Amino acid sequence: MPSSAAAIPAINGNPFLPHLRRSNLNRPLLFHRPRIVAVTATSNAAATSSTSYLTSVNDEIDAHLKQAIPLRPPLSVFQPMHHLTFAAPRTTAPALCIAACELVGGHRRQAMAAAAALRLMNAAALTRDHILSGRNRDRIGHSFGSNIELLTGDGMVPFGLELLARSDDLTQSNSERILRAIIEITRAMGSQGMAQGERNHSHHGRPDHSELVCRKKEAGIHGCAGAVGAILGGGTEEEIEKLRRYGLYVGSMQGVLSNWDERKEKVSMENVLKELENLALQELEGFDRGNVQAISSLLATNFGDD
Amino acid sequence: MPSSAAAIPAINGNPFLPHLRRSNLNRPLLFHRPRIVAVTATSNAAATSSTSYLTSVNDEIDAHLKQAIPLRPPLSVFQPMHHLTFAAPRTTAPALCIAACELVGGHRRQAMAAAAALRLMNAAALTRDHILSGRNRDRIGHSFGSNIELLTGDGMVPFGLELLARSDDLTQSNSERILRAIIEITRAMGSQGMAQGERNHSHHGRPDHSELVCRKKEAGIHGCAGAVGAILGGGTEEEIEKLRRYGLYVGSMQGVLSNWDERKEKVSMENVLKELENLALQELEGFDRGNVQAISSLLATNFGDD
Repeated sequence: MPSSAAAIPAINGNPFLPHLRRSNLNRPLLFHRPRIVAVTATSNAAATSSTSYLTSVNDEIDAHLKQAIPLRPPLSVFQPMHHLTFAAPRTTAPALCIAACELVGGHRRQAMAAAAALRLMNAAALTRDHILSGRNRDRIGHSFGSNIELLTGDGMVPFGLELLARSDDLTQSNSERILRAIIEITRAMGSQGMAQGERNHSHHGRPDHSELVCRKKEAGIHGCAGAVGAILGGGTEEEIEKLRRYGLYVGSMQGVLSNWDERKEKVSMENVLKELENLALQELEGFDRGNVQAISSLLATNFGDD
Repeated sequence: MPSSAAAIPAINGNPFLPHLRRSNLNRPLLFHRPRIVAVTATSNAAATSSTSYLTSVNDEIDAHLKQAIPLRPPLSVFQPMHHLTFAAPRTTAPALCIAACELVGGHRRQAMAAAAALRLMNAAALTRDHILSGRNRDRIGHSFGSNIELLTGDGMVPFGLELLARSDDLTQSNSERILRAIIEITRAMGSQGMAQGERNHSHHGRPDHSELVCRKKEAGIHGCAGAVGAILGGGTEEEIEKLRRYGLYVGSMQGVLSNWDERKEKVSMENVLKELENLALQELEGFDRGNVQAISSLLATNFGDD
């Protein structure tokens, strides 16, 4: 395995981590947090637990959504939303939201509506991508006209936010937390749209910029998922920011996994992933070691396989 | 002027008021609230005050939005949102939201973010309509590609909801009110999408159904605007429901004004408008007479002229 020092120039010289560098413009990234991390989550055991945690949490999110999205007449309206939501491939972001909530001591039901909203947001983005570029056609199996898809995608986002707003339980006085979660999610959606806009613009000539934007998008959504889970679970400000950064690193890994072109990169993907994993695990320091297993297992997930 | 009795069969036999009939399925609409209303808002004086109230409130909403939507690089991203928002024709719904807030004793700043969100929602809907059908092209002056418009429309809705969520002022403990407003608005957006979906489906053969759906949509948005204003202004449950119904009637009038085809209707438009105006004004009974002037002036507005 290459030494971690070998990967430093790759991380710092590579433009695919703008989110990670934003708060850290004047210092090399790796020197910012010099602690050494001993844990690693890429063992076989962790991979197994990753699959089972991810699968069980995602099954629970889908069950929640199945109850929430009515499948009733007029089917011309509800069927596309139902279909496009559940046909969209699963990602790690909703599970990360649940895991972050549990890690700060919350119960998973407190983050369930937010996780469902993230799932809907992803399905809406895929639907939009499909309309824009014809991507994902085979994966989702589109049988609706693009007008219906456009309207359904438009409807998914407010529906997800409605679920989240309605999850307010007055006896728990958690309205402030939910409002904060709504701000986080609407902001991430805005940035996502902008990222897509940039990508769209970059299509006229610089395809690798397009890959960069895809990675940035994954990082942003996962950062949002980590922060929202921690907010809803009642985490401290420090915990919220640690889990936001954890999400940014996990999302960057997912972005690398799904948008890596060997021919264009000067470093090995394994090196980059290893460095990101180390950075992610550093954010989990300070949490009870017995409780980090679920969330750190998400590091071993290649969502392309899910 | 025809007697109000002459218009009864027209209202009850006409399918353009499904919203109004929903809570009233087993009784003829006009017998549900038999009180006679003496006020009328269609005098010249009211029309003048309508224009000035509507104009000043809308100017204030636009000023709020101009401050909120940054016009900064990358202009390829922010310029379309700026342009499409302010180029969209004004409607009465945002002003109705402010007027309802003031009528229940609230300050207009409490409803300003919600009014701005309603304005963005309308601009997003127009953008989508334009993509779907090429309508409104001349009014808005589209100079962006439809991909950019699709992304911008997608970004407007979360941006509006973010503004609303961020308007929470913790010192006033109004988070519950804002969450309730978010639920109202996201629901109205969902129904709006569905109405559009129905219209889309109905394009294959029944154009008058399409007009019906447009009217239903206006009614729904205005009903939402009235309820949201009352919620944010601290109205009682009874006041909230009265102002929701007031909005439904006003929106129905707007829907009639913008979607009336003389050749297809068996009654005169004036009769229908007069009946709706009476129903609307009945909802304002019980409020302080001195304070209803602003909100009742909106009845005299033909937003096509604004």
